[in-house]
Amino acid sequence: MTLNILIAPSGFKESLDAEQVADCIEVGIHRVLPNARTLKAPLVDGGEGFTKALVEATGGTLYPVEVTGPVGQKIDAFYGLLGGTRYKTAVVEMAAAAGLRHVPTEIRNPLVTTTYGVGELIKSALDAGVERILIGCGDSGTNDGGAGMAQALGVKLLDEDGNQLGFGGGELIKLKQIDLSERDPRLDWVQIDVACNWHNVLCGDRGVARVFGPQKGASPATVEQMALALEHYATVIKENLDLEVRELPGSGASGGLGTGLLALIDAKLHPRYEIVMQYLEIDNLLPKVDLVITAEGCLDYQTPKGKIPAEVARRAKRYNLPVIALAGTIGQGAEVNWQHGIDYFTSILTYPCQLQDAIADTSNLLTNAAEGIARLLIVGRQVRNCTFSGW
Amino acid sequence: MTLNILIAPSGFKESLDAEQVADCIEVGIHRVLPNARTLKAPLVDGGEGFTKALVEATGGTLYPVEVTGPVGQKIDAFYGLLGGTRYKTAVVEMAAAAGLRHVPTEIRNPLVTTTYGVGELIKSALDAGVERILIGCGDSGTNDGGAGMAQALGVKLLDEDGNQLGFGGGELIKLKQIDLSERDPRLDWVQIDVACNWHNVLCGDRGVARVFGPQKGASPATVEQMALALEHYATVIKENLDLEVRELPGSGASGGLGTGLLALIDAKLHPRYEIVMQYLEIDNLLPKVDLVITAEGCLDYQTPKGKIPAEVARRAKRYNLPVIALAGTIGQGAEVNWQHGIDYFTSILTYPCQLQDAIADTSNLLTNAAEGIARLLIVGRQVRNCTFSGW
Repeated sequence: MTLNILIAPSGFKESLDAEQVADCIEVGIHRVLPNARTLKAPLVDGGEGFTKALVEATGGTLYPVEVTGPVGQKIDAFYGLLGGTRYKTAVVEMAAAAGLRHVPTEIRNPLVTTTYGVGELIKSALDAGVERILIGCGDSGTNDGGAGMAQALGVKLLDEDGNQLGFGGGELIKLKQIDLSERDPRLDWVQIDVACNWHNVLCGDRGVARVFGPQKGASPATVEQMALALEHYATVIKENLDLEVRELPGSGASGGLGTGLLALIDAKLHPRYEIVMQYLEIDNLLPKVDLVITAEGCLDYQTPKGKIPAEVARRAKRYNLPVIALAGTIGQGAEVNWQHGIDYFTSILTYPCQLQDAIADTSNLLTNAAEGIARLLIVGRQVRNCTFSGW
Repeated sequence: MTLNILIAPSGFKESLDAEQVADCIEVGIHRVLPNARTLKAPLVDGGEGFTKALVEATGGTLYPVEVTGPVGQKIDAFYGLLGGTRYKTAVVEMAAAAGLRHVPTEIRNPLVTTTYGVGELIKSALDAGVERILIGCGDSGTNDGGAGMAQALGVKLLDEDGNQLGFGGGELIKLKQIDLSERDPRLDWVQIDVACNWHNVLCGDRGVARVFGPQKGASPATVEQMALALEHYATVIKENLDLEVRELPGSGASGGLGTGLLALIDAKLHPRYEIVMQYLEIDNLLPKVDLVITAEGCLDYQTPKGKIPAEVARRAKRYNLPVIALAGTIGQGAEVNWQHGIDYFTSILTYPCQLQDAIADTSNLLTNAAEGIARLLIVGRQVRNCTFSGW
């Protein structure tokens, strides 16, 4: 029987994305154990690269679609179909249609950018006959509460004269009436899940306008205008749909797109990694593997509080699987992780250095560290047959 | 059957000596495998701490002896008897009787300091009825070519008038005749081995006067005088004893004590770690253990060229034992070590830092790294019973 290893890492901030981390670990393992079978489940956030990573991890396919960009221009976007799933499943990353990257720096104004293209991507997925859609939030260039997205799918957002609102978060202040009567009927039959940063909320002091507005090009005055518009948007949603979204976890994801997805097209919001693990069917993969390797930029006392290595370990332990975590840095209090299903963790560092040097060398260090893991696993097997009494 | 682990590390320069390194590793292992049986063989150089380390590692005993210090004062020195050896074995560290520490800074003059006390320690060991003596060189405060040591054991070093030379390397220039007729006869029956830095030679450009004279307090003029005296010493040894010692490896150890030991009391010189491993009977310990852990400050492409981890691994591989090496830093080309019997190596570092910070934290980092090793060994055993095909 061959050794089966699930590689389920997060990305390393500022150096490698989750896919690259998984690739490095795989290469390192295969240097020593060329016949080990590796399954990769890169735990991506919902932002740029989300679709590609999930499509590649599952052997799926990318489909190009031309959509309306955040400032109304035509852009080349895409969605993906996952491979090997029971239900036909699409992946849509909002940044492909409405990412900050698509907003030219000189005209960055979050009052006017739209998520209309995100709705078009969802429509394309529906046209392809999918049964489930996973939507990734992150890296957005918009702040329209998902209004454009909903409009692209037939939702009417009307002002007091009964006219559709125009593009952009600035229009939301005029919203009077939400009309779902002409919404794409296929949405009633498709399961839509959203991978959100669970800490992003629509309104209040930690609301999306105040927290993310500035990085999307908003002046202090604009930030207040945005906050006011989103506040009004939440009020109308409450009145029309009896939904309180103001401080709902994820409601502020991608400039409030989370709210639009939840309130206007009946999507379900999820903590991003939680839902990604579900779609990657990690719970189905676990019974098939002998060992789990996870990774994160830093491992410390906070890791058990919902960070990827701990979440992976929690699931692995249901199958009593050994779990190894690789980290750039081992921080304060990391030993608590021994109690949370991580059987071994190690830093990938091998020499005294500045953080910047380590970041530049991450790929090499990580690959070598994974190689080392494989070597020490072999040592563990090689040690003569004596009981490891005491554990 | 309990897991038996041989811990055979070197010291970490500027932070921990070999004993401390071994202790840290033991503590880390026992955190996870409290019942593992650890055997410690700290690979010490011949300098300060040599006797204590070997005595402790073997469960032997230290014996205090009052001897003549390097500037003629009485000092409290000691020798040790190793525990558990087949032959009654003493350990003598030259620095205990003639170390630089015993030469008051204000009167440092290598022309007058003597190794007489070293001879007295050897004599005490002979009085105790030992069959073997291991002498450690290093940290010396003398430069007398071992003349004082030999005189303490009955060797006559005579000037042209037939008078014994006085103390100190400066006297050697007057040496005319070596008379071994009254040398302690017990020396004929005892095996004496010397742990030397193999690169220290008596004469020439890399001779001990020029390389070490300055740090023992010699001015440039004194260095030349010392070099001349040792040159003359070598000449007389050649004439009287038909021995060419000038550039013999180890002949310059501890201000030429190596030469005196070799030429005047028939000791055998050895590369320091080589002979320490012999006296620690590592070859006898290896068949009793399941795993070997070694360590060194830095592991790199030079390690296989005679550094401790490689030497330990070479011996361990005769018994097909797995070998793990812990290092402060993993340097350039370290992967060559995979081909030299080291099955796994890892750095103890866990965060980006300056070398000085790492040095200050070595004990903690090393203990944690050893704990990690034990944990990953367990993982290796825990992995379901599948073949690790491909190795």
